[in-house]
Order: sequence, then structure tokens, then C-alpha cells
Amino acid sequence: MEVLKIIIGFLGPNGTFTEEAMEVWMKKLGFTPEQYKKVAFFSIEDMMHEVGKSLDAAVVPVENSLEGSVNITVDSFIRGVDAMIKGEVILPITQHLLLKNIIPLSEIKEVLSHPQALYQCRGFLKENVPNARLKEVSSTAEAAKLVAESNNKIAAIGSKALSKIYGLKIAAESIQDSNNNMTRFYILSTQDEMVTGRDKTALIFSTENKPGSLFRSLKIFAEKGLNLTKIESRPSRRILGEYVFLIEVEGHRLQEPLKTALKKLKLTASMFKILGSYPIFDLNELKR
Amino acid sequence: MEVLKIIIGFLGPNGTFTEEAMEVWMKKLGFTPEQYKKVAFFSIEDMMHEVGKSLDAAVVPVENSLEGSVNITVDSFIRGVDAMIKGEVILPITQHLLLKNIIPLSEIKEVLSHPQALYQCRGFLKENVPNARLKEVSSTAEAAKLVAESNNKIAAIGSKALSKIYGLKIAAESIQDSNNNMTRFYILSTQDEMVTGRDKTALIFSTENKPGSLFRSLKIFAEKGLNLTKIESRPSRRILGEYVFLIEVEGHRLQEPLKTALKKLKLTASMFKILGSYPIFDLNELKR
Repeated sequence: MEVLKIIIGFLGPNGTFTEEAMEVWMKKLGFTPEQYKKVAFFSIEDMMHEVGKSLDAAVVPVENSLEGSVNITVDSFIRGVDAMIKGEVILPITQHLLLKNIIPLSEIKEVLSHPQALYQCRGFLKENVPNARLKEVSSTAEAAKLVAESNNKIAAIGSKALSKIYGLKIAAESIQDSNNNMTRFYILSTQDEMVTGRDKTALIFSTENKPGSLFRSLKIFAEKGLNLTKIESRPSRRILGEYVFLIEVEGHRLQEPLKTALKKLKLTASMFKILGSYPIFDLNELKR
Repeated sequence: MEVLKIIIGFLGPNGTFTEEAMEVWMKKLGFTPEQYKKVAFFSIEDMMHEVGKSLDAAVVPVENSLEGSVNITVDSFIRGVDAMIKGEVILPITQHLLLKNIIPLSEIKEVLSHPQALYQCRGFLKENVPNARLKEVSSTAEAAKLVAESNNKIAAIGSKALSKIYGLKIAAESIQDSNNNMTRFYILSTQDEMVTGRDKTALIFSTENKPGSLFRSLKIFAEKGLNLTKIESRPSRRILGEYVFLIEVEGHRLQEPLKTALKKLKLTASMFKILGSYPIFDLNELKR
């Protein structure tokens, strides 16, 4: 009898931090790599729409401690992705400068990487390869692949995992501007998670463009002593200066006092959608 | 006798929307192109630091109605740029697909542009050139320049002004996903603007990571009926989940009731900085 495997999507190609986050998550659930099937996607929004269709779950980056939110993930929820957040994973991000063969840094003509990785290392790049052209590609893995296929004057920024996958040399280690570089990922599924007692809830809502309308929404949480752990404004895409907010708040949507607060907010918001309740990630899990 | 010209910076090269915003601003002030000297910069942050040194003023993009805030502009203020906001300009953005010579869209191998322009046109690109590789470069003008210098299989996304500067053909007109595509720019100088009676004030502040702390800050404005026109959260770059906020509020910092509200906020915020008070841009000015 064939066992049905869980099918989980990640932002490809192989070797991205999203894949690493997926592996951390599946290990936490007690799955060995043989017990699930992973599928690489090249568009975050397309992948998010496949949850509940060709995918049981998907892993998407949501924010980085230096760069801020991943807009495409937040915007995909606003534009109507129905997947729910079942969990989160936080990974420390260490970036390296990868070359096919070691050459002096001054000879590097071009540095390729994902826009966020280039941004995270811009202090190092400005100082060490000031004349290299920076080229943004779709992922750190794509950058490593291009460097592996190309001549030696171009470099990639990416993880140690990538240097192994593509047979690249590490020309400079840990080149990110800050050691507080962490990325947080959402695990998406068709349903969110049960109450664990240490939960967070994510939601999106919009308010009228009137004095104090955001204040009145936040008041609902403040009155009940609920801690907002994230607030992000995104353009409504209708009028400049009109926003949709993504917030995260401590507590589970099925437990008081959050349950009543959400009910109240729904009544006043012109758009309102709960993205899911999920257990808060414990950074100690990475050490296991 | 030589007349001292105003020296104003913009995000180069020539033909960017930032240059267009600068021209709108200088025309509004009554200057002819002969009466000021414009200087192209290739880094927003570097340019912002030059205000008060080699530059009298500078123009930077701050937000787009579809894509949201320009993070580097907001982050540069957070990281300590001392320039103040003296004005704003809002421009409607129309993007075109530019080619050296007209070929069928299906033959295009690569599309180059600024990340925000690629993002703004991703619906068109997905439908019409699904197999083309998207390459992010530093500006729409840089993309046009590269297309002009290269063979015919690559396209750029940019303005009509760029097609003229670089002798490119318009292969598809007005390809942005939404016609609500507007970009707002700040005019920076060493001082902000006097009271005009129809003003906005921008500031950045951070709050403690405690329940209700953002709420208590916004309460100060709400109590006085002051309308927030923008709120943007950026990572503090210290701890994941700790934020710095940029807000814009109607009113002038030297006029009540805003004056007292700002004084109150300063007392409670762990970081607080006024970026400037400036007149609200009137879209009708573009028609003149």
C-alpha cells in the first residue's frame, strides 16, 4: 500500500532559506525527508494560490529583521489568497560571497543575488567591491546557479548550502551588515492551528480615511491589553494615501480576550480578514 | 556678475520620474531650466546626505500608490539623514515597453527595469512575455540605456521621455497594471517650509515593545482630531519585531493643535525626529 505523502511548496530553486525553513518545520512535526514531497515554486503568489489545490502546505518569507516585510507575501493575502497561517519559523540569515574560483575581490565585475540579500550586504559591497555592478535576480539560489554556469568575474551572495549545491567557493564569509539578520517565514495550509496557549494571530483590515480611524481600530486591542507584535501598512492600490493594514497580535482567535476584540474590529473595518492563529516560534528549536 | 544657481539633486540618470518631479517642482517655484543646476545621483542615501553640502536641495521618491513606500528613502531618514522635507510632488506614472527595434513580444528574452516598475507591470508581463527573464536594474533610465546599447532581444520598461532620450521604440503603451499609478516625491532641503495653512508634517518615532504603545502614540493625534495621512513601519534593525514608524499628519509643526501633540509624543517616544512641515501638493498644478 502506498502511503500518501504531504506535498509542501517552497520558494525555489533548491538551497534557498525558504527551503531551509521548510526543513526546520517538517523536522519539528517529526517528518523525515522521505515522508513528504517538496515542490519548488518561482512565484510566491502562484504558490500561495496552490495551497488546498496541488499543495497541502507552503512556506513563504514574511519579514526580515533588516529589510522589513516581504511585500509580495503581504500583498498576496490582500489580493485574496485563501491559505491560512498554521505556523511560523524564524531563521538566522548568514550570507557569503560565492565565486566559482577564488580571485581578488577587486576583479569582480558583477554581484548577483536576490534584492533583499544585496540590500542586507550593501555595506560590505560598497566597501569591498565598489565598482562591481549589482544585479538583482529572483533568488539567492538563482544567483549561485548563474555564477556556476558563467565565467569567473561574477559573484553571488548566498548561503553555505548553496555553495555546496553549486560547487562554489566562499570568497568572504558572513558578509551581512548586521548580525541581527533573521528572517521569519509563514507556514501556510488550508486551516490554521489549534490553541496551544502561546499563540499569535495575523489579520488584515482597512479603515476609512478619516481622522483617528486607525487609532480607533488599535484601541480595541489596547483596551484589552493585547500586544501587537507587528503592524504593516500597504497601499490599497486604489488611492494614494489609502492603506490596508496587516497586524499580528498575541493570542488565539478562538480565545478571549482576542475573540471579542476581533468581533468588534470586524464591525468597524471596511475590509477584514483573519489570516490565522498559530504557535509562536521558539528560537531554541533551532538548537535541537 | 555671475548669478549663483540653485544646485538640486535627483535620482539619475536622465529621464527618470524623479527628474520629472524635480522639473515640476522648479517650475512651480518659477525657475527656468537655465536658473538651476541639476545633478544626477545613483544612490538615494548618498544624495540625501549631500543636502546642505554639495546640494541645496534634492528630490527623492517616497511612495507609489501600487507598490507602497520606497524603503531606502524611509530608512535613510531613520539612519540619520539630516535633510528636511520642504515640499512634495505627486506624478501619475505611465510605463511603456521599450525596444530598440520592434519585434514580436514573444521573441523578447529579457525585460529590464527598476524593481518597482517591473512590479507595477507584472500582470502585463505575465500575460504577454511569460518566458522573458525579468532583470532588476537601478532605474528605468538605466534599463533604457542598456537596451539602447544591446541587441534587440531585450526590452526595458520606462517612460516616454526615456524612449526619446535613448532612441527606443514603444512596443506597448501604458502597460502598468492599474491606472491609479501615482508616485509621491519629497523635496529635501536644509530647512522645511513656512506655514501655508494647508500643510502636512512628517516624523519618525519608535515606541517601547509593550502592549498598546503604538496605540498610546496615535492617541495623542486622535484626541486632537489630527488626521494621519500615512503610517509606515520599518524594522529597527536591532530585534525582529521591533519597529520604527514614519507618520505623516495634517497640520504644521509650528501651529496648534499639532505643536502640542508633537511635544507630547516626544516625551513618550524612545526615538523622535521631525522630518519637516510642507504644503500639501495640489494635483491640479500638473495641469498648468
